Amino acid sequence: MANIKEIAKLAGVSVSTVSRVLNDHPYVSEDKRARVIETMKQLKYARNMNAVHLITGKTKNVAIMLPFINHAYFSLLMEGIGGEALANHYRLVLCQTGYEPDKEREVLEMLRNREIDGIIVLSTATPVERIEEYCSYGPIVCCQEAGKRAFSSVYIDHSRAFRSAMECLIAKGHRHIGFTVGRMDSPSTRARIDVYRKILAELGEPLREEWILDGCLGMEEGAAIMQRLWDMPERPSGMLVTGDHVAAGLVWEAGRRGVSIPEELAVIGFDNQPIGKMLGLTTIDNRLYEMGAEAFRILYSHIQEPNQESVQRELDFELIERSSV
Amino acid sequence: MANIKEIAKLAGVSVSTVSRVLNDHPYVSEDKRARVIETMKQLKYARNMNAVHLITGKTKNVAIMLPFINHAYFSLLMEGIGGEALANHYRLVLCQTGYEPDKEREVLEMLRNREIDGIIVLSTATPVERIEEYCSYGPIVCCQEAGKRAFSSVYIDHSRAFRSAMECLIAKGHRHIGFTVGRMDSPSTRARIDVYRKILAELGEPLREEWILDGCLGMEEGAAIMQRLWDMPERPSGMLVTGDHVAAGLVWEAGRRGVSIPEELAVIGFDNQPIGKMLGLTTIDNRLYEMGAEAFRILYSHIQEPNQESVQRELDFELIERSSV
Repeated sequence: MANIKEIAKLAGVSVSTVSRVLNDHPYVSEDKRARVIETMKQLKYARNMNAVHLITGKTKNVAIMLPFINHAYFSLLMEGIGGEALANHYRLVLCQTGYEPDKEREVLEMLRNREIDGIIVLSTATPVERIEEYCSYGPIVCCQEAGKRAFSSVYIDHSRAFRSAMECLIAKGHRHIGFTVGRMDSPSTRARIDVYRKILAELGEPLREEWILDGCLGMEEGAAIMQRLWDMPERPSGMLVTGDHVAAGLVWEAGRRGVSIPEELAVIGFDNQPIGKMLGLTTIDNRLYEMGAEAFRILYSHIQEPNQESVQRELDFELIERSSV
Repeated sequence: MANIKEIAKLAGVSVSTVSRVLNDHPYVSEDKRARVIETMKQLKYARNMNAVHLITGKTKNVAIMLPFINHAYFSLLMEGIGGEALANHYRLVLCQTGYEPDKEREVLEMLRNREIDGIIVLSTATPVERIEEYCSYGPIVCCQEAGKRAFSSVYIDHSRAFRSAMECLIAKGHRHIGFTVGRMDSPSTRARIDVYRKILAELGEPLREEWILDGCLGMEEGAAIMQRLWDMPERPSGMLVTGDHVAAGLVWEAGRRGVSIPEELAVIGFDNQPIGKMLGLTTIDNRLYEMGAEAFRILYSHIQEPNQESVQRELDFELIERSSV
């Protein structure tokens, strides 16, 4: 395969002119640029981009750390990231970890090994301190609240969002409120349980652990919630369900059983997904698309100017009232 | 930062021994391996993976060419690919193209520029001949039927699948059958229209172009189909809907309007998504998860042994009968 010296010789220009053309450098005359490009075409020149990355120190790749690819929450975040990445000629390296510590560490190591220019963490089981250790190798942005850290974050206040959803139910007269979680051991779950405990104390209601339903990730688990609730000797009259796909499963199963929503069971979803809109679900819009887009914008800005302070950006959530409460 | 020479010196081994350890080469004594690894830790050695890729000729990255990230059809394919990629220590570079020819060409150029080891094409608007031009640079696998080509493909027979869905409706007495498509100008749409025309001729029914509903990609368009059908002076009694999310929108909107399924409108979906299972939707399982997994396995095998013949692999679809027909 042709190399840069041969191109220079055939085009009658210097090697550094060829290099300038390859790197879109502005100070090349139009005439020389045209001759170089024509010669490259003649010689079917292809760059080995690994060499380019080695020289420029940029890969134009950003890693996305996420536990599962096929989940509506992550798909919506990814779409927000994807739009911005596309506009800035960046590519996303999808790193599906299943929350395995080894797999998560591999993604962080990619930053150290300069295979990528930065990382966006959608959800992780790695302690924040461990993530901070990698910040000297390049920018990292998390889509979770983590306090003031060496890495940046974009998030909504899960505690306030949860409180606002509970208050919406309480305003309609509900005192017996349950909620679903994806996994018990996540920062947002812990934040929600704290708020739940506080609000129940304010209401003078006991905390019933069986009303916190674990392992609810998709529509099928949502449908199964009905059975779990109806098997209880005493059940909640209102449910906070994260997110809308789980709530959709619940609402659909309720319809199938002739349980009327909201009369017999009030439901609030999270995420403001299209399926929730279709079902008339009251939901908390936690701005996932915007969160993804903002995460990329912050990361990109830190790739361009590496010595900036980390950014902690809170987005406003919104309670969207429809007909399920 | 430490380099490989310094590591060799400090560990008291040759440079090529360090290199063997870095590349997981088997012929290194355990004692030397341990010394090298210990020294690397001491010196906080990190490899520039771009240099490694330049030397090994492998990047351990595979590009995924797809039009949209946030779409259930692609998410299910991606999940199948992701599982195999994870098991083989490969990463997926997500290239969202929006079917733009320039963006699609950029992905193909990545293969020429050796930024990736291969490409899996989920859906494309680029002519197959153009894709073939890139096959000399590395393996490409398409998840669409394309005949015998220089690239490999994994697919189901869309014509047979469509016929089997139509015959399911015809067996229940339907003669007035419509169908939805995502975009008119795709190979699978063209295959379906051909079959549609043939079967209508066999039935002695005219082809009504207004019964081919274009632009149906998600749940919201599915819900809108009801209005489009009910506005027709004469409407079909059965609908083939690609895929299950569109069908789910239709079924939900039918429920809201008190239109009974299947009595007033029979519906067959495609893709066998969880939402279809929940709604009791009869569907064609086109094996998307398996298709993604098989696409990766073929690609991986061609990365390992580059001079193999391209593979054309047809997967069996399955008609899953539930309660919507």
